Amino acid sequence: MTPTHLLDTQDWSVADVTALFNTADVMAQVMERTIKKVPALQGFTVGTLFFEPSTRTRLSFERAARAQSADVVSFAAGSSSLSKGESLKDTLRTVDAMQADLYVVRHAVSGVPHQLARWTDARIVNAGDGRRAHPTQALLDAYTFQKNFSGFDGFAGKKLAIVGDVLHSRVARSNAELWTKLGAQVTLCGPRTLLPPELEQPNVTLTTNIREAAEGAHAVMALRLQGERMQAGLLPSLAEYRVRFGVTEQVMAHAHPDALVMHPGPINRDVEISGALADSEGSVIEAQVANGVSVRMAVLYMLLVGRK
Amino acid sequence: MTPTHLLDTQDWSVADVTALFNTADVMAQVMERTIKKVPALQGFTVGTLFFEPSTRTRLSFERAARAQSADVVSFAAGSSSLSKGESLKDTLRTVDAMQADLYVVRHAVSGVPHQLARWTDARIVNAGDGRRAHPTQALLDAYTFQKNFSGFDGFAGKKLAIVGDVLHSRVARSNAELWTKLGAQVTLCGPRTLLPPELEQPNVTLTTNIREAAEGAHAVMALRLQGERMQAGLLPSLAEYRVRFGVTEQVMAHAHPDALVMHPGPINRDVEISGALADSEGSVIEAQVANGVSVRMAVLYMLLVGRK
Amino acid sequence: MTPTHLLDTQDWSVADVTALFNTADVMAQVMERTIKKVPALQGFTVGTLFFEPSTRTRLSFERAARAQSADVVSFAAGSSSLSKGESLKDTLRTVDAMQADLYVVRHAVSGVPHQLARWTDARIVNAGDGRRAHPTQALLDAYTFQKNFSGFDGFAGKKLAIVGDVLHSRVARSNAELWTKLGAQVTLCGPRTLLPPELEQPNVTLTTNIREAAEGAHAVMALRLQGERMQAGLLPSLAEYRVRFGVTEQVMAHAHPDALVMHPGPINRDVEISGALADSEGSVIEAQVANGVSVRMAVLYMLLVGRK
Repeated sequence: MTPTHLLDTQDWSVADVTALFNTADVMAQVMERTIKKVPALQGFTVGTLFFEPSTRTRLSFERAARAQSADVVSFAAGSSSLSKGESLKDTLRTVDAMQADLYVVRHAVSGVPHQLARWTDARIVNAGDGRRAHPTQALLDAYTFQKNFSGFDGFAGKKLAIVGDVLHSRVARSNAELWTKLGAQVTLCGPRTLLPPELEQPNVTLTTNIREAAEGAHAVMALRLQGERMQAGLLPSLAEYRVRFGVTEQVMAHAHPDALVMHPGPINRDVEISGALADSEGSVIEAQVANGVSVRMAVLYMLLVGRK
Repeated sequence: MTPTHLLDTQDWSVADVTALFNTADVMAQVMERTIKKVPALQGFTVGTLFFEPSTRTRLSFERAARAQSADVVSFAAGSSSLSKGESLKDTLRTVDAMQADLYVVRHAVSGVPHQLARWTDARIVNAGDGRRAHPTQALLDAYTFQKNFSGFDGFAGKKLAIVGDVLHSRVARSNAELWTKLGAQVTLCGPRTLLPPELEQPNVTLTTNIREAAEGAHAVMALRLQGERMQAGLLPSLAEYRVRFGVTEQVMAHAHPDALVMHPGPINRDVEISGALADSEGSVIEAQVANGVSVRMAVLYMLLVGRK
Repeated sequence: MTPTHLLDTQDWSVADVTALFNTADVMAQVMERTIKKVPALQGFTVGTLFFEPSTRTRLSFERAARAQSADVVSFAAGSSSLSKGESLKDTLRTVDAMQADLYVVRHAVSGVPHQLARWTDARIVNAGDGRRAHPTQALLDAYTFQKNFSGFDGFAGKKLAIVGDVLHSRVARSNAELWTKLGAQVTLCGPRTLLPPELEQPNVTLTTNIREAAEGAHAVMALRLQGERMQAGLLPSLAEYRVRFGVTEQVMAHAHPDALVMHPGPINRDVEISGALADSEGSVIEAQVANGVSVRMAVLYMLLVGRK
């Protein structure tokens, strides 16, 4: 039984994730065809509720829905009259006029997708809530690793290093949760002020030393540096950040020879990642974007129609 | 012959409305299926022109169009460069680049949909103009009553009570017009300052006494309280309003035992309507939302393709 | 071989344009049917990237895409978080999450569509860049002339007069380029300050005398007067402009007896063009709007699927 929602990956068993990745394989084949469209979700309506703007993620979900012939209704909360002091529940009631079968929700406050799931009969997919979770990003990252790591033989014994502003990153949290569930080890690396000690858990280690993080890693993921963090004084100077936490060829020399370079995108070239490295053979950054559509197609399919 | 437009319900005969409700029955069945989509309007383009924001109504129309495989082009006048002093006629000319077959129009000024109907060959559906009319809301309210009133045997002899800020309400005006045309009696109830005497007509009575309004009513409809009216001093204090015009279990005790509780939504819980009453068995507020899609599907179908 | 992009008409041979017009004929027939939709582009995704607002052009492209069953994803750069100082390349990377097959691009800066074409594998259609080019407008104008000029026997020997603010007009530039390529002669007419001498070329003449421009012309095109230019002191007073550069019945008396009256729309009635003339038999202004959809359908079809 597929879970009812995708709020985070905690409710999803390894078998669920495996089934999802198998479905994503089928979807990836569809996206290779000349006619990149299947009628799988014809007659279903997917509503996107973005209370926090995210063009990139929204467009990926919209494409995933339309490629399966679902109807898409987009609701950008910020631009609506609803934003003026209306309660979340009122907003949901208003939006429910579209009678969607599934809502894709992004909100700056952690837990909002869970709350909405209690109030509606529709399926909910969390497209990012506060610093807490961004499950489809973690799923597409793990899927990309599985497809691209040379001679992939399972997540057991693999090591993922995530480098950057871990404190504010739902991408880091969701990846740590998912990869350890799948059997991998995760190292989180960043400036000490941006490395919350409570993230240390079985199979999750913290370090401020990027070489230690990269040591033997099968994948190294650089997080996007948000300029506003630096202005807030939470980060060292740009030059210092680049030297200490930039993912470069020198850093990758410590990693596994076949290690993949990942980034949730879009990159700040030569800031958190070296431009040459981003364009190198080991980089799967473009594959992550393409896999984003396939994995989200699989999520929508599994929640609306069930397992194949 | 179906009328060319739906500007208000004055041009629609009882036979037209009956045909519409029969079509809405078919549409409601479509929306019960797993695949909630029919090709009835394939190749038609529905344009939504909202000069005044209304997420709820717009989403309902969009869903109604897409469920019949029409293409939808949405044009929010407020957010466009067109809003800067361009004439209504210029705006229509610009929008006509989409070559839509039907426009759904909402505007803060009464009569705008009628004016647009004179300027274009496309069909026009009024989605609310000023305080004047909101015909699809009245149609979905009457349809919901017909479907949900126990042992419904026609509108003749039925009584609808509408309670709240009648002065500013196009919902009240359109319902009064439609229900009396169908043979029912309508009582409009609210504070004296918000109860325009000219609305008194054959089969439409006015009262400031909510018990009198509810007396023997087969349906009681609470209007949404607009906070901005209260700030403008047009309404008594919130506490006083609640006591005098809130629709509660005590008020409903005066109504017909099978009376339905209605609200155009979204509700201000425990302000114009008691929360418990809104959630009670007699409440058809959720049915109104769902019927909104079916009735609007029927409107689009009848105007574009004709009577079944 | 159809060119890969439509950045301007320079790369398009006369044979390409002829093939495009033949395809547009087929599309125009589709738009005459009851069901105005063909599956030609099913499974393709068209993204509209409007960095400069243009409701009219965007709606025309969207309709052209949807009428061929393509999916449409619209991205209005101005309203997005991307507008805040993000580089053009970053924006493209973000938008690429939708994995579109073709992007329709409008930008206030000349050359942006060309730059995007270098960065993406998708097809690019220029929907207007700076003052430089607006190729689909020129194509639909020439197509409209070909379809509507009485006894049309080719562009050779024909004369097009374009009147107005030539300096700021990409419509004027693109039409001059295309019509001369097709064999016609073009006269550009306007106040001296708005008539850049470098536009004079073989088969393109400049004049400040509207009677001279109209003399023997087979088509006279009035450009839309932008109010902001007048405020900037670039134009004489409105009254003077109207007398010297307004396209009127008196002006048309100098033209060929079958001459067509054209305007990219929407018109300022009785400013740059006489209202009576705009409504007259020789006016093809409404045909230009309808042909805009057919020609853009043909552009999308040729770039995505190839020549018929």
